[in-house]
Amino acid sequence: MLSKKINVGIVGATGLVGEKVLKILEERKFPVNKLSLFSSKRSEGQKILFASEEIEVSALSKDSFKNLDIAFFAIEENLAKEWIPLARKECIVIDKSSAFRLDEEVPLVIPEVNPEKIKEHKNLISNPNCTTIPLVVVLAPLYKAFGLKRVVVSSFQSVSGAGKDAVNELLYETEVIAYGDKIKKDSDSFFSSPIAANIIPQIGSIDKQGYASEERKIIEETRKILELPELPISATCVRVPVLVGHCEAVNIEFDVNIKVDDVMKVLKSASGIKVYPDNKYPMPIDVEEKDDVHVARIRKDIAFEHGIALWLAADNLRKGAATNAVQIAEEILKTRGEK
Amino acid sequence: MLSKKINVGIVGATGLVGEKVLKILEERKFPVNKLSLFSSKRSEGQKILFASEEIEVSALSKDSFKNLDIAFFAIEENLAKEWIPLARKECIVIDKSSAFRLDEEVPLVIPEVNPEKIKEHKNLISNPNCTTIPLVVVLAPLYKAFGLKRVVVSSFQSVSGAGKDAVNELLYETEVIAYGDKIKKDSDSFFSSPIAANIIPQIGSIDKQGYASEERKIIEETRKILELPELPISATCVRVPVLVGHCEAVNIEFDVNIKVDDVMKVLKSASGIKVYPDNKYPMPIDVEEKDDVHVARIRKDIAFEHGIALWLAADNLRKGAATNAVQIAEEILKTRGEK
Repeated sequence: MLSKKINVGIVGATGLVGEKVLKILEERKFPVNKLSLFSSKRSEGQKILFASEEIEVSALSKDSFKNLDIAFFAIEENLAKEWIPLARKECIVIDKSSAFRLDEEVPLVIPEVNPEKIKEHKNLISNPNCTTIPLVVVLAPLYKAFGLKRVVVSSFQSVSGAGKDAVNELLYETEVIAYGDKIKKDSDSFFSSPIAANIIPQIGSIDKQGYASEERKIIEETRKILELPELPISATCVRVPVLVGHCEAVNIEFDVNIKVDDVMKVLKSASGIKVYPDNKYPMPIDVEEKDDVHVARIRKDIAFEHGIALWLAADNLRKGAATNAVQIAEEILKTRGEK
Repeated sequence: MLSKKINVGIVGATGLVGEKVLKILEERKFPVNKLSLFSSKRSEGQKILFASEEIEVSALSKDSFKNLDIAFFAIEENLAKEWIPLARKECIVIDKSSAFRLDEEVPLVIPEVNPEKIKEHKNLISNPNCTTIPLVVVLAPLYKAFGLKRVVVSSFQSVSGAGKDAVNELLYETEVIAYGDKIKKDSDSFFSSPIAANIIPQIGSIDKQGYASEERKIIEETRKILELPELPISATCVRVPVLVGHCEAVNIEFDVNIKVDDVMKVLKSASGIKVYPDNKYPMPIDVEEKDDVHVARIRKDIAFEHGIALWLAADNLRKGAATNAVQIAEEILKTRGEK
């Protein structure tokens, strides 16, 4: 059992992921002694309820991290790069951003997959990308059972993966369309193209090889977590007009001959996965506020000799972000409890 | 040059595809002598403008096809099966439904790909599925140039592919969401799940192998058109909350080593394809009312030894349906003119 409660900070407490971390800490009865909430200057002074107590949000300062045990970072990459070096001198940082994910010295952790990496932390643990997490939750047990030859993934990603401004833009554009008007974009728009009644097949900037940064994240993070640096894997990431819930069409080739039933068995007995029966499938509306990765449509992939195709869906703000981060914190406490 | 105008019928003239056939016949100045429009009893008596003339829609009868040269069928599979055997005794039928597509005696034609098949018709030519057409427009020239080893496709399909009721349901549900209400489904609903702010990863019924009927259509029709009955190809078809425009993420492995530039060259010189420059991509809103298949994000597929990944989009009602059908009719006229 845990001996004592700890001091927790949330950096980016008024963002979509920060808010969700707060909610999940409370849901899971995380042993919080003192909770400190930080945000940009824009949200400074805002008051947020946690466990029936009102907590005022502060702007970050050099002294913010003193007396913290764990800080959850849920802010954008550039700000994470600026503040985390300071924060990790004082406490353990669990970072949601992509800033340090591929740093060799930083564990990139999904607790169902590689919890043992947590103990290697030097006060910083990265949370994978919200599309990588559900993918690897599914790939890891299959890799152990059958070996992985190659993976192809196409994603259907909700706007909440891009933050509050993106959500508000979809809601606004939905109203515009409902009124029969045309969507107009300007320099203040979050997405440069309409997202309501449309889809956008590029997330992040395109590199020299033609991959978008979101696609690179999936590729490189999957390789790092599975410790398969040469894994043949490609991705196409697409934004769809959905508020919450990322989905993925996944095609997997294995090293050995497999039966669909064997794949089902492995996934059913794996941690953090809900397998749907035949003829049922998860949609974004089915996974909102759920922590499991929902998997369905498992079938032989007839493009490959030893392949399967499957469909997965997960709440990108929960398992794709906040739940995974809180699970990492729980693992840290377990290790401490064992000492 | 064409010697004489012909008598044309449109069966399903008040449906989304039928209306589009009418529009495209006019746009392309198809040499229509007399136009006859047919529908279900529900739309009988409706009047439709064609070339400044008002034409009354009739219900189908045994005598409907007498004196027609070409009949475009744009009705559902079961009705097509019922009426086409009668119609083809009188005239050439160009069928949009899936009823006869895989019949060995029926040519399945994309005019950019296999126009030579048209002359084998026995008064019936099938139009491929609206997701198959753009895919094969792209695959065919690549197959000729480099050979095809395998194809994996994930589709992002608009609701207009499912007809007017599906479009109306998305529009209605968009209003419900704009008003902040919850979508309610009942036995009259077209989709059994909400389609606004959601995606549905199953189109058609699931077969014993776990594939949805829409996925089987893509697989089997692609194999038939390319005359590659054993082509390793798999598909995942997903309905997205978009009105018009089907998109596809396509992963292709070739028999030989390829360079992305060579693939670009082949696609740029192929018929019916618009290739986008780097950093540009087509979305559903970009392809509405366009006839070309729009292709972008062409990049090396790092899951394969000799592969590329690409993104395509096309207007499912035009190139995916009505334009392709009218192009087939134009080819028939050309052949007649040459005789």
